[in-house]
Amino acid sequence: MSSNGYRISFRVSWVDTDAAQVVHFSNYSRFFERVEEEFYRHLGFSVTDHKYKEVWFPRVEAFCRYEKPARFNDLLEVELTIEELKEKSVKYGFKIYHKDLAALLATGYVVIVAADKQTGKPTQIPMEIVERLKPFCK
Amino acid sequence: MSSNGYRISFRVSWVDTDAAQVVHFSNYSRFFERVEEEFYRHLGFSVTDHKYKEVWFPRVEAFCRYEKPARFNDLLEVELTIEELKEKSVKYGFKIYHKDLAALLATGYVVIVAADKQTGKPTQIPMEIVERLKPFCK
Amino acid sequence: MSSNGYRISFRVSWVDTDAAQVVHFSNYSRFFERVEEEFYRHLGFSVTDHKYKEVWFPRVEAFCRYEKPARFNDLLEVELTIEELKEKSVKYGFKIYHKDLAALLATGYVVIVAADKQTGKPTQIPMEIVERLKPFCK
Amino acid sequence: MSSNGYRISFRVSWVDTDAAQVVHFSNYSRFFERVEEEFYRHLGFSVTDHKYKEVWFPRVEAFCRYEKPARFNDLLEVELTIEELKEKSVKYGFKIYHKDLAALLATGYVVIVAADKQTGKPTQIPMEIVERLKPFCK
Repeated sequence: MSSNGYRISFRVSWVDTDAAQVVHFSNYSRFFERVEEEFYRHLGFSVTDHKYKEVWFPRVEAFCRYEKPARFNDLLEVELTIEELKEKSVKYGFKIYHKDLAALLATGYVVIVAADKQTGKPTQIPMEIVERLKPFCK
Repeated sequence: MSSNGYRISFRVSWVDTDAAQVVHFSNYSRFFERVEEEFYRHLGFSVTDHKYKEVWFPRVEAFCRYEKPARFNDLLEVELTIEELKEKSVKYGFKIYHKDLAALLATGYVVIVAADKQTGKPTQIPMEIVERLKPFCK
Repeated sequence: MSSNGYRISFRVSWVDTDAAQVVHFSNYSRFFERVEEEFYRHLGFSVTDHKYKEVWFPRVEAFCRYEKPARFNDLLEVELTIEELKEKSVKYGFKIYHKDLAALLATGYVVIVAADKQTGKPTQIPMEIVERLKPFCK
Repeated sequence: MSSNGYRISFRVSWVDTDAAQVVHFSNYSRFFERVEEEFYRHLGFSVTDHKYKEVWFPRVEAFCRYEKPARFNDLLEVELTIEELKEKSVKYGFKIYHKDLAALLATGYVVIVAADKQTGKPTQIPMEIVERLKPFCK
């Protein structure tokens, strides 16, 4: 795993699975979001903090490549890395591992923009957030 | 089926299932809500209409009894009935049928209150909505 | 909180919320299931263990009473208690608290039966599971 | 819209939304899958038909580009096209439109392989399925 990623671990819940007895493909996006949320908590802020109330952070792209299925109760490790930090957007990379097997299950990325809540137009990522993200840039 | 219910039909999606190859129990609440949404469309309004902007309709109780499992691709018929219409709340009853087998899969209910968006306190259901609901009361 | 419950804590994810900016009511069932899964891990078994391969544990009833809404990032504490342990079924009670406010957000229960995978008929809960559950009975 | 796509329409449900009052990004994958399921029904088969019992169809890639948000009650039209049909895989393209505004909300694709259920290895897509898909190829 890369040296400057942020990682969390959790187990696959029953509700995450589908009738093929594997995790439903749409849930990988939710796992990506879960590590992103924990990453912000780790950095000490939330996108819903009052001071960011004029900005929101919609996703503009999401991609996932599924290598191997995950099953109920599997212990997953999800790693977030910052692939690209621009003035108005950030691209996070994700890797999902089966922790006990040390196997890569999926890779993906999500591109997020900062947008003005009134106009919907892209705007600068608040500097305080940029400063907290920088140490994680490659 | 009861004479004054409102019914919709739809098929079980793959994402609704879990590793037991049946519909995950939490999705029945979502099916209840789906028929409720279609019911309001059928009655010609939406709870998000501008004129109701000072009210919201949180659920205060939900119950489901699971009789038989539903599986991928099953054609379901979901029936909504009004069990009780009070000044500030409404109790909907639900029945889910496997349409081809004419089998009852689940029954349940949901109690919804009208609440003032500012105070959070229960308030009167808007009269226009009450008038539209009345013909469906038992 | 009751003395012999089992508790876990987690934060509300963005995906758990809906356009009313509160947790969607169907997700409380998922929170109930999450603490149930962790409870079994705590007790050292999984319902999917090979030795239980002839049994499954469908839910036959689920109920939730919603007291106060939960919001994004809220730290929740979910408590599971055993309300009733019978030969072929178990009834779990659940309480969801807002941990920082020490406020009760929801209460509910789920009734689960042990069923023979071949016949679908109710069967005895495996004795090893019963033994592990007993210390948590009221 | 392209001439040889397959289209379905449905409204955004409350449960599809999140606290930003738009459809949660992970639900677009679910919308893609919903039109895929309806497409197969339209073609007269299901991937779970008994004759395909030795094959399953895992997703190996999924991508979505989000152009504009979708909101509760919006009438969506989702179009599926076959971007590439190979011996062992198929790539579906998707476009999601806001029907009343005739606005493009999202584009994406999903790559699916046929896999042997025993070995997990890629295998030929059953010829009957290939024959039904061909008329939709560009």
